[in-house]
Amino acid sequence: MSTQERVVSADDHVIEPGDVWQSRAPQALKERAPRIVETEEGDFWEIAGKRRPISGLAAVAGRKAEEFSAKAARFGEMRPGCYDPDARLEDMDLDGVDVEILFGTLPGPAGNAFVGIAEEDAELAAFCARAYNDWLVEDFCAAAPDRLVAQAVLPLWDAEGAAAELERAVDAGHRGALFPALPHAIGLPPMGHEHWVPLFRAAEDTGVPLAFHIGGSLARKVASELIGAESAGDHLAAETVVATAPLSNYGALANVIFSGALERHPGLRVVSVESGIGWIPYFLERMDHTWERHRFWTGSDLTRRPSEYFQEQVFATFISDDAGVAALDRIGVDNVMWEADYPHSDTTWPHSRKVIAESFGELDAAHRAAIVGGNAIRVFGLDGAGGS
Amino acid sequence: MSTQERVVSADDHVIEPGDVWQSRAPQALKERAPRIVETEEGDFWEIAGKRRPISGLAAVAGRKAEEFSAKAARFGEMRPGCYDPDARLEDMDLDGVDVEILFGTLPGPAGNAFVGIAEEDAELAAFCARAYNDWLVEDFCAAAPDRLVAQAVLPLWDAEGAAAELERAVDAGHRGALFPALPHAIGLPPMGHEHWVPLFRAAEDTGVPLAFHIGGSLARKVASELIGAESAGDHLAAETVVATAPLSNYGALANVIFSGALERHPGLRVVSVESGIGWIPYFLERMDHTWERHRFWTGSDLTRRPSEYFQEQVFATFISDDAGVAALDRIGVDNVMWEADYPHSDTTWPHSRKVIAESFGELDAAHRAAIVGGNAIRVFGLDGAGGS
Repeated sequence: MSTQERVVSADDHVIEPGDVWQSRAPQALKERAPRIVETEEGDFWEIAGKRRPISGLAAVAGRKAEEFSAKAARFGEMRPGCYDPDARLEDMDLDGVDVEILFGTLPGPAGNAFVGIAEEDAELAAFCARAYNDWLVEDFCAAAPDRLVAQAVLPLWDAEGAAAELERAVDAGHRGALFPALPHAIGLPPMGHEHWVPLFRAAEDTGVPLAFHIGGSLARKVASELIGAESAGDHLAAETVVATAPLSNYGALANVIFSGALERHPGLRVVSVESGIGWIPYFLERMDHTWERHRFWTGSDLTRRPSEYFQEQVFATFISDDAGVAALDRIGVDNVMWEADYPHSDTTWPHSRKVIAESFGELDAAHRAAIVGGNAIRVFGLDGAGGS
Repeated sequence: MSTQERVVSADDHVIEPGDVWQSRAPQALKERAPRIVETEEGDFWEIAGKRRPISGLAAVAGRKAEEFSAKAARFGEMRPGCYDPDARLEDMDLDGVDVEILFGTLPGPAGNAFVGIAEEDAELAAFCARAYNDWLVEDFCAAAPDRLVAQAVLPLWDAEGAAAELERAVDAGHRGALFPALPHAIGLPPMGHEHWVPLFRAAEDTGVPLAFHIGGSLARKVASELIGAESAGDHLAAETVVATAPLSNYGALANVIFSGALERHPGLRVVSVESGIGWIPYFLERMDHTWERHRFWTGSDLTRRPSEYFQEQVFATFISDDAGVAALDRIGVDNVMWEADYPHSDTTWPHSRKVIAESFGELDAAHRAAIVGGNAIRVFGLDGAGGS
């Protein structure tokens, strides 16, 4: 396979087995550290005395749509590729995917599960992030470091600590870290706050991007507040969340651009993960219009059009998005990355090569290669990764 | 000018002068009914003892962007076309617009100002809606009923009353009515609730569309909750609201489609007003995917793909939207309508003809005619309207 044809999926997930934290916890934290509890309703993580289900929708690889369920999954019923790196590599081979960019499950799409316990137990929360980062590179990605690429979880409540953890994680092999699309929504300072300066500087210095994965700080708001589905019944809630969660990441784009974070940190790069791309041409145009026509009365901090920050510092991933592929000239072919989203409910596995052929069949080879691999290799700095 | 070249702007606003309600109020309501109060900070409406400013951004027609201000406007400083129908017709002639679809100002983009007072004073709230509807056709649109097309405000808290008022308004000349994108967000039952059945049936029977105008039930949420701008400072709030308010109407589309309202009321047609259109191809694809892949576990009520309801029952308006015009084949050329948004801060006035020429210069004549007029004539039932 030539370099041009390496397939990098820019967003996939591991499901952490119970010993990730138990095997690393010092005695004083063992009782509070995450463990797996098997129940008749499925498997749960217990963390600081509270139970969190492993959503069945997070482990559907290999199931038919008719069998999807949001009920708690069981490790015994999911594909071993969810939690076992050797099985994962086999599943990647089956699917024709050379490299995966790996996010977690228990930490939440923005590390928000640990943010949620930091106020009451900062020691436990910091341990949870660190142990996750260690496990991911030492026990999972180590099976094939050129094919399994880790994204770190940071102690976001502690700005200097988050910067230090990012540096430590990158030294250990991580190639990026999670960041909440709307930090204020999970109790953290807003995106434009000086709290974030040390972390954004560390991201510039290490050269890895920060990832705004959908769902991290938006899913609850989309479900219960914006769409109001909670008041309209469960199945409407479910449909609206599934349909709107990706697009809702426009809030992340507006936030990171209008807050001036990208202006003040020209080396900072961010990835809008699983957001889709087809809505981006519209939104770039709208943000530019806002700056061109309204910046006088709003008192904008920006010195350039919003789309210029996007072109240089923002990237977005998508699974299948015909509208976006048709509008690539308005987004920037270098700003988008394909993803398989293994093992989640929207995954293309095990048909990724078929989806790629259908989605990009009319693109020229260089553009196709950029979208299915080249861009991710550049954005995540995977110069030695993948290939066969 | 041939029939094919009639220009209909699908979204413009009147600013109601102080006597709209005062001249119609029975003695018992006069004290509480809206009146204009002139202050050193600008002109305000006083309604039920509370003051509401007339946003300077709602009356900018004729000003340069450098002069825009969100401070309270004054009637003495705005173009008379904002409140005087003869002056409005002159401004339309200046702009080359034959017909305007007219929404109000004090009622709010979804009649939400009156919803807000209904709980404490339902009698006053119902009077406010009725008097607005009467004034709009009797004193404003009467100046040229074929060029000035009224959209009614309904007593939404009273389902039978809202249905009756819609029928009364249509008899009087109204060609549509406002409806909140997220009714639950302003204290009303959610979109899928049976509360709405009488009103949706009345809309089917009268054949006029319901309008989801941006801002009605979404603006506050977008500003303070989704984007979190409130906590990040005023100018960020302003920029994010301006940039995101139109796209935020995706919540209205998800809500009206997934709630089953369009499925249960096949004669109901809705208009997503000022939402732009460039994001719609992406969102139709995503909603269809949600239905195709997730409907088993979500228990969807829908019997068809979401995009099929859109094609037959949903329309959207836009001011200037190159991404959307480039993707018309994915949206449906019959589902979109151009608008001038006079006299708001995004208005194309007095350059609408230039904007139309630039925006649609590459479309064929029939498509252009549909977008700048023909679709609105069909959707709002303006068979005798406009032209010259």
